Amino acid sequence: MKNLEVLFFDVLGTVVDWRGSIAKEAATLLTRHAPAGIDASAFADAWVGRYDPSVEGIRSGTRPFVTLDELNLENLKDTLQAFDIAPDKVPQRELQHLNRAWHRLQPWPDSVAGISRLKERFIVAPLSDGHTRLMVNLAKHGGLPWDTVLGADIPRAYKPMPQVYLRACELLGVEPENAMLIAAHDYDLDAARACGLKTGFVTRDNANDPSKPVKAVSSGDWDCQATGLLGIADHMLKSRS
Amino acid sequence: MKNLEVLFFDVLGTVVDWRGSIAKEAATLLTRHAPAGIDASAFADAWVGRYDPSVEGIRSGTRPFVTLDELNLENLKDTLQAFDIAPDKVPQRELQHLNRAWHRLQPWPDSVAGISRLKERFIVAPLSDGHTRLMVNLAKHGGLPWDTVLGADIPRAYKPMPQVYLRACELLGVEPENAMLIAAHDYDLDAARACGLKTGFVTRDNANDPSKPVKAVSSGDWDCQATGLLGIADHMLKSRS
Repeated sequence: MKNLEVLFFDVLGTVVDWRGSIAKEAATLLTRHAPAGIDASAFADAWVGRYDPSVEGIRSGTRPFVTLDELNLENLKDTLQAFDIAPDKVPQRELQHLNRAWHRLQPWPDSVAGISRLKERFIVAPLSDGHTRLMVNLAKHGGLPWDTVLGADIPRAYKPMPQVYLRACELLGVEPENAMLIAAHDYDLDAARACGLKTGFVTRDNANDPSKPVKAVSSGDWDCQATGLLGIADHMLKSRS
Repeated sequence: MKNLEVLFFDVLGTVVDWRGSIAKEAATLLTRHAPAGIDASAFADAWVGRYDPSVEGIRSGTRPFVTLDELNLENLKDTLQAFDIAPDKVPQRELQHLNRAWHRLQPWPDSVAGISRLKERFIVAPLSDGHTRLMVNLAKHGGLPWDTVLGADIPRAYKPMPQVYLRACELLGVEPENAMLIAAHDYDLDAARACGLKTGFVTRDNANDPSKPVKAVSSGDWDCQATGLLGIADHMLKSRS
């Protein structure tokens, strides 16, 4: 670990509270356009739950790369229909605004402090299925102090495709063994490790990805494991001091 | 200009003092390995002067993309020979250290303040022939507060190839007319304008690129023109207030 130069961070669930943020913004739209009694958290989970299957075509090569903005809008319309709300009855401007909630996800309370501390010693960069503009908007919205942003639209690929991890290492001029992925999800860390990266598991409440069958419970078999990003910072900075 | 979202910055000469920084580091090596009387500034200009011709093969497609680290090292060895210093007489470690001087270029005194002010209103990103890791290292070294970094190794192309400007706009999710290139060199702004971007000329002392036949004197025909990056910030923020 002493030659570690770069820390990559999963973002959705690991750095920002996607489920909570999306539920909050969905509630606004549902209040205006849905019958009473639809739970905004259930709606958000249903929307996010369509994410992984919708990416599958891109992973398998049957669909050309498109960004999360496009996938999310398709999935939002499908989710509205599943909740018996006709998408064409909702004004386009409101649909687009809710779809852009993904650009306004709130960081977990310790994310800015944790990344700031780690940035003093390492290069810090998000490694996300989000595209570059979405990641830049999240950083500006939440004050995330990345050294650079690497969106899914650079390799034109989604996790856990190996080129996501390998292209990120190539662009940051680092051998995979001198980079670490920090994430709250096993499947992501598994893929990073298969590409030769070090792995750090961060425990987060509410980080489960409703689109994945496997829950965010660590297998425990990682190079580093801690609660929250300040916990990761404590661990990583102590182990090098 | 009211829909302007993104400001791209040329870096070498515009944001950092490449000639001065390289001359200073070259002086250290020359003192140890060269006959007395070699002027470090002349050496630096000779080295930087090989840059543009060495990129030409990549622009024309006769050579696959390689980063500036590789081109600079080739050019450094050729420059040493041109000054009658045998490259293989210089320890590899010292050669590599001088070659890495490109990762330690000093910002002009107003660069951090100017970019910081502009960052409050716009997305700010370098758009340079430097690769991603070089740009990240420069930012960390000089405290340059970019929102993200777009290196030449993302489009695998060098200026003034149009894909450099167009891919940057695509990744930042912006129509070219809502982005502006800030640069101290006409040839760069000409190419950006041909791709539809707005253009801002910044006057810099000592920003001439010794590898280009044309000097850094503005044609005057740009969307914005000012002295230094604080001058650009004054102009851009006033015109939108």
